Amino acid sequence: MQRYCFGADIGGTAIKIGLFSEKGDLLEKWEIPTRKEDEGSHILPDLALEIEKKCFERGILKDSIIGVGLDAPGPVSDDGMIHGCVNMCWGEFNFVDEFRQLTGIRNVKAGNDAKVAAFGEHWRGACQNGGSMVLVTLGTGVGGGIVINDKILQGANGAAGEIGHMVVKRGETEYCNCGKQGCLEQYASATGIVRLCKQYLNREDWPSVLRNTQEVTAKNVLDAAKAGDKLAAAVVDEVCRYLGMSLANVSCVVDTDMIVIGGGVSKAGSFLLEQIEKYHNQYAFSSSRGKRFEIAGLGNDAGIYGCARMILEG
Amino acid sequence: MQRYCFGADIGGTAIKIGLFSEKGDLLEKWEIPTRKEDEGSHILPDLALEIEKKCFERGILKDSIIGVGLDAPGPVSDDGMIHGCVNMCWGEFNFVDEFRQLTGIRNVKAGNDAKVAAFGEHWRGACQNGGSMVLVTLGTGVGGGIVINDKILQGANGAAGEIGHMVVKRGETEYCNCGKQGCLEQYASATGIVRLCKQYLNREDWPSVLRNTQEVTAKNVLDAAKAGDKLAAAVVDEVCRYLGMSLANVSCVVDTDMIVIGGGVSKAGSFLLEQIEKYHNQYAFSSSRGKRFEIAGLGNDAGIYGCARMILEG
Repeated sequence: MQRYCFGADIGGTAIKIGLFSEKGDLLEKWEIPTRKEDEGSHILPDLALEIEKKCFERGILKDSIIGVGLDAPGPVSDDGMIHGCVNMCWGEFNFVDEFRQLTGIRNVKAGNDAKVAAFGEHWRGACQNGGSMVLVTLGTGVGGGIVINDKILQGANGAAGEIGHMVVKRGETEYCNCGKQGCLEQYASATGIVRLCKQYLNREDWPSVLRNTQEVTAKNVLDAAKAGDKLAAAVVDEVCRYLGMSLANVSCVVDTDMIVIGGGVSKAGSFLLEQIEKYHNQYAFSSSRGKRFEIAGLGNDAGIYGCARMILEG
Repeated sequence: MQRYCFGADIGGTAIKIGLFSEKGDLLEKWEIPTRKEDEGSHILPDLALEIEKKCFERGILKDSIIGVGLDAPGPVSDDGMIHGCVNMCWGEFNFVDEFRQLTGIRNVKAGNDAKVAAFGEHWRGACQNGGSMVLVTLGTGVGGGIVINDKILQGANGAAGEIGHMVVKRGETEYCNCGKQGCLEQYASATGIVRLCKQYLNREDWPSVLRNTQEVTAKNVLDAAKAGDKLAAAVVDEVCRYLGMSLANVSCVVDTDMIVIGGGVSKAGSFLLEQIEKYHNQYAFSSSRGKRFEIAGLGNDAGIYGCARMILEG
């Protein structure tokens, strides 16, 4: 009998769902909208129904489902408790128990989205040859996940891998979303890059294509830097310095085999990667220099792969 | 039959040796000098002889020795290779194999001194109730070791836990022993505290008891700060701010249950600990605040305990 598993990456706007073979091959992926109304109470029932529909469509019997892996953008304990999730309008409840009841599927596992994405990337993305890995995700925020000995590093309070909230600057006057000042996220997220760029535009009188842009975005800044715009290049240099220094500090703590950069900003590719690596090696302890740097390979699918891996390697 | 193991912590001036029962109780400890002449070639033979003498003295048969754990102040791989050790005048060689040949004891294990000390402290010191732990050792330098799931975090290049070489300041003009600039060790080691204090003495015109001291030492500075000396207190505040910020960044990476402060400087006790904890909580990501802070409990014996643990839990 063919056996299957599902992975579902629950995000603020969409739930990405993947159907996987027993071997971990992605057979099909699709999305449904995340209905956040009524305190997010439709989200898990919608997902349960979607899985039921897919099984019916493909003639998959419940007995042949190995399990379902889930992730969400909030802290999730090993027992499946989700401790609040602002994006979903969720409070504290047991994610895994509720989904078991909705589906009758026993083998349900859940994790935090950034950590699970790292777990997926490590399995089928940039780190397929094994070894330990740090994934840093540069998107609206800066997320992170660490995989050592083929396990996600969770941390005592689920906060391991919160690389975006390492303090990189003393004396910052603006606040990070987390309430602190000087977090890496304030400089290296898409939002941070735009913020930094606006500071440069106000402070310097250098000519720049970004002065004539209707809306400055992280992509604009990176594209302009690639094209040789001096101001944009200075912004990207500063972003990469903060990232390289933070990752060098991460290397002083966990010293992984590999560092992987993901998220929307990482689409700038080797242009970005080489500058981050240069600063990492400048700030890193000697024996930690020269580790492998890669751009994440799975893009937005890292989450569903990680969800599937929780089930297939569990 | 009673069974025993030995732990030997090989340092730059002395080798500390402990004889342990099978249960991990320390039965006896003593030291021999570290003879570094002739490229450190006497060190292991001296230790082998010392263990032989102790067995003879106590009537311990070779069959009743479970094993010998060793540590040294250099990078040691899992297979027992030591990759250079400046303090011992050692190059690269297999530490474990050589000691096996010298003694005929098969079960020999070896590790890096800071990591092994963390392993010992976690076992019989400040963290006996379990959980994960970071140990930061404030001595001539700043060392560190991390224990997660009862295992030492080694790192891909043996550099996990090198907390002393996290960069905490951009724009530092002096150099760390490691060749970088702005490492935590430059501010929070005994040497770093003295350096910082001298900067304050030159820069500020505040009266201070330290102006009349023949030689400024880290202990002087800490004692003066405790007694209310304004200049000394400002130095200690800055040291604790750097330490607290670095440890908050460590918490963003590994988020352990506990943070333990050891080394000579930690003799300042709760006076120091409370200030480090205050700054940790100020700079830490919200869910990482409020973890347990303790002063190391084993002092200089942490190394021999960690060596014994490698054997008894191996």
